[in-house]
Amino acid sequence: MPVITLTTDFGLADGYVGTLQGVILSIAPQATLVNLSHDVPPQDVPAGAFVLYQAVPFFPPDTIHLAVVDPGVGSARRALAVRTSHGTFVAPDNGVLSYVLASTNVEEAVSLTQPAYRLSHVSATFHGRDIFAPAAAHLANGVPLTELGPRAINLVRLPMPQPEPASQGSLVAHVMHVDRFGNLVLDVAAEALAGQVTFELAGRKIERLSHSFTDVEPGELVAYVGSTRDHVEIGLRNGNAARDLGAGVGDEVLIRR
Amino acid sequence: MPVITLTTDFGLADGYVGTLQGVILSIAPQATLVNLSHDVPPQDVPAGAFVLYQAVPFFPPDTIHLAVVDPGVGSARRALAVRTSHGTFVAPDNGVLSYVLASTNVEEAVSLTQPAYRLSHVSATFHGRDIFAPAAAHLANGVPLTELGPRAINLVRLPMPQPEPASQGSLVAHVMHVDRFGNLVLDVAAEALAGQVTFELAGRKIERLSHSFTDVEPGELVAYVGSTRDHVEIGLRNGNAARDLGAGVGDEVLIRR
Amino acid sequence: MPVITLTTDFGLADGYVGTLQGVILSIAPQATLVNLSHDVPPQDVPAGAFVLYQAVPFFPPDTIHLAVVDPGVGSARRALAVRTSHGTFVAPDNGVLSYVLASTNVEEAVSLTQPAYRLSHVSATFHGRDIFAPAAAHLANGVPLTELGPRAINLVRLPMPQPEPASQGSLVAHVMHVDRFGNLVLDVAAEALAGQVTFELAGRKIERLSHSFTDVEPGELVAYVGSTRDHVEIGLRNGNAARDLGAGVGDEVLIRR
Repeated sequence: MPVITLTTDFGLADGYVGTLQGVILSIAPQATLVNLSHDVPPQDVPAGAFVLYQAVPFFPPDTIHLAVVDPGVGSARRALAVRTSHGTFVAPDNGVLSYVLASTNVEEAVSLTQPAYRLSHVSATFHGRDIFAPAAAHLANGVPLTELGPRAINLVRLPMPQPEPASQGSLVAHVMHVDRFGNLVLDVAAEALAGQVTFELAGRKIERLSHSFTDVEPGELVAYVGSTRDHVEIGLRNGNAARDLGAGVGDEVLIRR
Repeated sequence: MPVITLTTDFGLADGYVGTLQGVILSIAPQATLVNLSHDVPPQDVPAGAFVLYQAVPFFPPDTIHLAVVDPGVGSARRALAVRTSHGTFVAPDNGVLSYVLASTNVEEAVSLTQPAYRLSHVSATFHGRDIFAPAAAHLANGVPLTELGPRAINLVRLPMPQPEPASQGSLVAHVMHVDRFGNLVLDVAAEALAGQVTFELAGRKIERLSHSFTDVEPGELVAYVGSTRDHVEIGLRNGNAARDLGAGVGDEVLIRR
Repeated sequence: MPVITLTTDFGLADGYVGTLQGVILSIAPQATLVNLSHDVPPQDVPAGAFVLYQAVPFFPPDTIHLAVVDPGVGSARRALAVRTSHGTFVAPDNGVLSYVLASTNVEEAVSLTQPAYRLSHVSATFHGRDIFAPAAAHLANGVPLTELGPRAINLVRLPMPQPEPASQGSLVAHVMHVDRFGNLVLDVAAEALAGQVTFELAGRKIERLSHSFTDVEPGELVAYVGSTRDHVEIGLRNGNAARDLGAGVGDEVLIRR
């Protein structure tokens, strides 16, 4: 029985996540459930996309990833199931799968319209419970993807953040994610930064790309090769770079060679 | 092996919830555990009751629901196990089961006094670990409810919040729960509001009961049929109604026909 | 298949904890995973040590406890697996195991250097994912501890907090942990306080050691025998002692006989 992961913006206080799990276990009692994150900021689709992007490579390829960050619930946006070689995804068609789909091919995608694989009563406001969770559970039970509804093409894709070329061979990168430790994950891969580089943001300068936090003294800023798919990160050893710099998602970082 | 759900006000930082799970898995290693919520506000029994009310219908009827919001721990309040057709509940006798019991009959209830089904040392302050978790685990193992202690009658019941009739056929409803998105769950069911109705709270007026968030423009207030047992909710599309209105649990909403 | 517990300072928002679980389930698909706490304050090793200290006695002795609070990741600090009669621990060698090891003997300890039991690519910043999680999973699969690397001696130990003797037979105890309810766990065991004692902190006095919260009136301070290994706690009935007193970890409490 495959693993089912859950990523939502529901938070953990209201019991909505537990309800999703009740629906799944009612249909697929043997499923193994893993919570990726339920603290995606409310309705922040790119933030949900980042959670999947970071985590998916470390799950078995038969894993079913349920991702419900769904500001358009109740509108005409499609509900999708998408199979790739890195896992099967169940999510609204709003771009939350964009970052994982940027590095893997869609083998098959369907729109979740088949009533037999939804709850008998579908609310207008909680499709996570009524449509997405049942679909994930039926897929875990071995129902073929194509049974869940008609083929879906032209999935909504958000552009993958990426650095822009600037004058004299420099790059303008962007903060793509700020993690719990206040580390800033940039939209640039370490392998794109061969040779000596410097980083400038918020009026501060970092003189090199380091291997690790521990290459600098406590209290110093450091740019290093992070753990999310080789992205460069900026941190503050034994501190919180985001707080210290007042930095957030979307902020620019000038990288000079 | 049935599902055991856990609902507490313990928070997730201290490890107390993990400890409950250790106790359960020591007794019933095959149990499937689901966290409903551990962020019930400390000692807020009605808030715990709401979490169960929202989630229980979506679990198999053989599920065991452990609910520990227990300001009276160490006092003479009883510890209960309660079997219904919608699930079996293990909880202090303080009303935390009131909202689920309002819509289902108690088949059998006992007081958890049998020492064989408690931990060998029972502290004065952590009955979740020492009494409730072992009871849930033994029930999951198939121990009959009536083995856990003597029959209990006259369970503590909190009144179910409900709207009050007001002048000219209007109703005064109340905010029963505020969720993570700032949506206000009212204590009135949509089916009680046939015909045209308006909603007034915090000096603002909503002109109709909508089907969904997406029936209004972003930034507008909307009253809609929510996902918790057909209760009406008030939200702010792409925003946070509770914050915008300064609204909280217990606030009144005037509903005119 | 044994239980694997997870204790980290990763928080739940970023998906890092889910990633650990993906790594574990890729190697040991049948493992039962329990989250102890992921809200250990960032890089607070003693706080992580306390979570384990509180929870470990309530798990089966074949449990594998993964604890990643790791400010030294990327430095030369060792990665450990440690077997005791109370469980097997996988953690950085920075003292996070100190409090559990204070009451149990190390049967065997190794340094996690064997590449076969790490992920194929080891990052400089996320050893939880790349070294510790795989080690825990392989141990759950039955790989002998001694296969994971060479024997490790002289583990880093933090001193166990303990009260200091003061004038006239009194003691100066310390706040060891503040829990979600604002209860202050002291570094003194109830059994060390035979006879009549009083407690003084923050200019306030408590006249006796009580059995339970409910021995005092709502709103009153109370010292009582807590639930963490018989430690004395100070609480505020139906309130938050830490907030009321402005108290925190390390604060002194004068205990007079």
